[in-house]
Amino acid sequence: MKFNAGEYLQKVRSQKPVVHHLTNWVTIYDCAAIVKTFGAAPVMAHAIEEVAQMTRIASALVLNIGTLTPEFVESMKVAAKSANENGIPVVLDVCGVGATLLRDNKTMELLNEVRIDVIKGNASEIARTAGEDVMTRGVDSTEVVQDMVAVAKRLANARRAVVVVTGAVDIVTDGKTVFKISNGVPMMASVVGTGCMAASVIGTFAATGGALVEACAAGLVCYEVAAEVGAQNARGPATLKEKLIDAVYSLTVETVASMQRIETV
Amino acid sequence: MKFNAGEYLQKVRSQKPVVHHLTNWVTIYDCAAIVKTFGAAPVMAHAIEEVAQMTRIASALVLNIGTLTPEFVESMKVAAKSANENGIPVVLDVCGVGATLLRDNKTMELLNEVRIDVIKGNASEIARTAGEDVMTRGVDSTEVVQDMVAVAKRLANARRAVVVVTGAVDIVTDGKTVFKISNGVPMMASVVGTGCMAASVIGTFAATGGALVEACAAGLVCYEVAAEVGAQNARGPATLKEKLIDAVYSLTVETVASMQRIETV
Amino acid sequence: MKFNAGEYLQKVRSQKPVVHHLTNWVTIYDCAAIVKTFGAAPVMAHAIEEVAQMTRIASALVLNIGTLTPEFVESMKVAAKSANENGIPVVLDVCGVGATLLRDNKTMELLNEVRIDVIKGNASEIARTAGEDVMTRGVDSTEVVQDMVAVAKRLANARRAVVVVTGAVDIVTDGKTVFKISNGVPMMASVVGTGCMAASVIGTFAATGGALVEACAAGLVCYEVAAEVGAQNARGPATLKEKLIDAVYSLTVETVASMQRIETV
Repeated sequence: MKFNAGEYLQKVRSQKPVVHHLTNWVTIYDCAAIVKTFGAAPVMAHAIEEVAQMTRIASALVLNIGTLTPEFVESMKVAAKSANENGIPVVLDVCGVGATLLRDNKTMELLNEVRIDVIKGNASEIARTAGEDVMTRGVDSTEVVQDMVAVAKRLANARRAVVVVTGAVDIVTDGKTVFKISNGVPMMASVVGTGCMAASVIGTFAATGGALVEACAAGLVCYEVAAEVGAQNARGPATLKEKLIDAVYSLTVETVASMQRIETV
Repeated sequence: MKFNAGEYLQKVRSQKPVVHHLTNWVTIYDCAAIVKTFGAAPVMAHAIEEVAQMTRIASALVLNIGTLTPEFVESMKVAAKSANENGIPVVLDVCGVGATLLRDNKTMELLNEVRIDVIKGNASEIARTAGEDVMTRGVDSTEVVQDMVAVAKRLANARRAVVVVTGAVDIVTDGKTVFKISNGVPMMASVVGTGCMAASVIGTFAATGGALVEACAAGLVCYEVAAEVGAQNARGPATLKEKLIDAVYSLTVETVASMQRIETV
Repeated sequence: MKFNAGEYLQKVRSQKPVVHHLTNWVTIYDCAAIVKTFGAAPVMAHAIEEVAQMTRIASALVLNIGTLTPEFVESMKVAAKSANENGIPVVLDVCGVGATLLRDNKTMELLNEVRIDVIKGNASEIARTAGEDVMTRGVDSTEVVQDMVAVAKRLANARRAVVVVTGAVDIVTDGKTVFKISNGVPMMASVVGTGCMAASVIGTFAATGGALVEACAAGLVCYEVAAEVGAQNARGPATLKEKLIDAVYSLTVETVASMQRIETV
């Protein structure tokens, strides 16, 4: 297979893009840490008075509704409009959508009022965002529809966005091309923040300006390969997170090339 | 002694309860991490528009006033009322009460306006909540009254709640039964967040639906046994926290049974 | 050289000062952790209703505008006025100044409306605060003026404050005395929060009440010596942060004395 995620890793490291975030208060540190460790420059500013200006100096914008409030979503919209006007890709992590009416409504507002370039969630979150009749149990994925590839493609086409479904096998699609990625380790599901960090990594790779669907897939591959490397010496979720971040720091293109497990469907 | 904290550990792992939090911005990640590592599902949402609904899908609610604002406490009340109506236990960590008038007033408002099932704090915080004349120095315990068991029992009876006093020897009482737990390691006092995580663990075990005073005691025992296991390879506060969380992940019922140091008074 | 940073370390450990913070939501945990690990007592409360009272029980106040909002800055002003009235030193980390108009304006408001005793930033942030024509790229230092010592001295004299410029070689000056510190390791620049933690350490050492410029320099030396010790076993940014904190915990006066690299200019 010709796809080489490591090429995108090199682009991130040479371009060092600024990646602006409006994210949740639980995993905000880890989102910044993973972006910085990949060699990029995270910024996490949320005041409605400055988000438009801060977004303009960024090469990607990552939104995450994990600890949303209505006011915070207004800041997200201002930031996203600034990104839209300046051709900066916007990633939306639909964290916990389906758990409450507020999350459902605000996700739809974001999708309808600004241009979202990448929609990222676990299976139940993406299914909910696509209009499937599923319930989310808190922020963890529970119910999964039968054919997530079909759901993801439908959502991608409806929203003209790249859709990323994280899970044991990740799906990345722009509605035509479909990547399936089977890197990563099961213990990642026991680490708080692995999903949020995935969205930040996707934003970081999207910032490089290549084909969006490929950049998103490359980011996930590199991140999950690092998790596999880190997991070799991890004894539980806390050491896994630490060693994953360390592994990102010293990740080589050769390691990515030899360990990537990605296929097109 | 017949009390087996490990039985509650098994219940947490099999039930995987959702534990909703309105907590502080300092240790919010660690609170989520410890709950998830025990096998439960943490949720940390605070918008007043969604906390009632989010609480309904949870099996316990944990409130922590560490970085309170008046608006945040209003969200806590809405969440707690939802919990009260749905028979979901509410844990209140009276973090830093006694340090400022705001903390004193808001703690009393919470205790008077909603039903709190578990009141948790260090010695000076619990003494203050019980109406003793003590001052808190920031968020660390400083002055301690002579007989904390009597103070805890009095508060438990006055508020018809389980009271948990953390310290070198923890006290857990519903006003009748009194457990004293002497697990844990002194270095925990040098790790930011060990107290907040204790409240989250108590919420997680309270979510299993057993006798509340026993569930709270069992949670503390399991958490502090894990700290002892983790401390064997810790070289300072940062590694202690990491290894504590890892130890929770692989904690066995047998380890808990052989290491628990709990007595009834 | 007679300067002994370790003497200040001993003062921190024996005095155990309360260090109050109004800081950002990204690195708030690490700021608290580093202060606690040095043996002091961090407090992080931001409600405008309590910050004046909380500041009065502290021996230093640390402000950091990393995730500022206009309302948050109002809380900072109230806290700083309380500190000013009570003779408590105020440290301001001008995090990200120059990136947006909001940051520029709020930094100037703070400097003009309350007394700031220590102004801390990286080279581009301090240059911007001093009125130099530089742009900040997010929160990372990018453009540096030729003679940072001159810029720092000018700002120190203009504001009658100690100015701290962090970098490969740190500058600490009150406008007359100039310390240059070359401890630390390059990988610190890849760890999110090392700059914020530096400000918290400076606040912790400033709380001991010695000569301010020396206390600030001593804090930086101890922190960066710990980083060097920690780096000996670090494999990446995540382990470096962990081992840095652990190294602070067991740092000895002898280690500081033998490893400190500080000179007066």
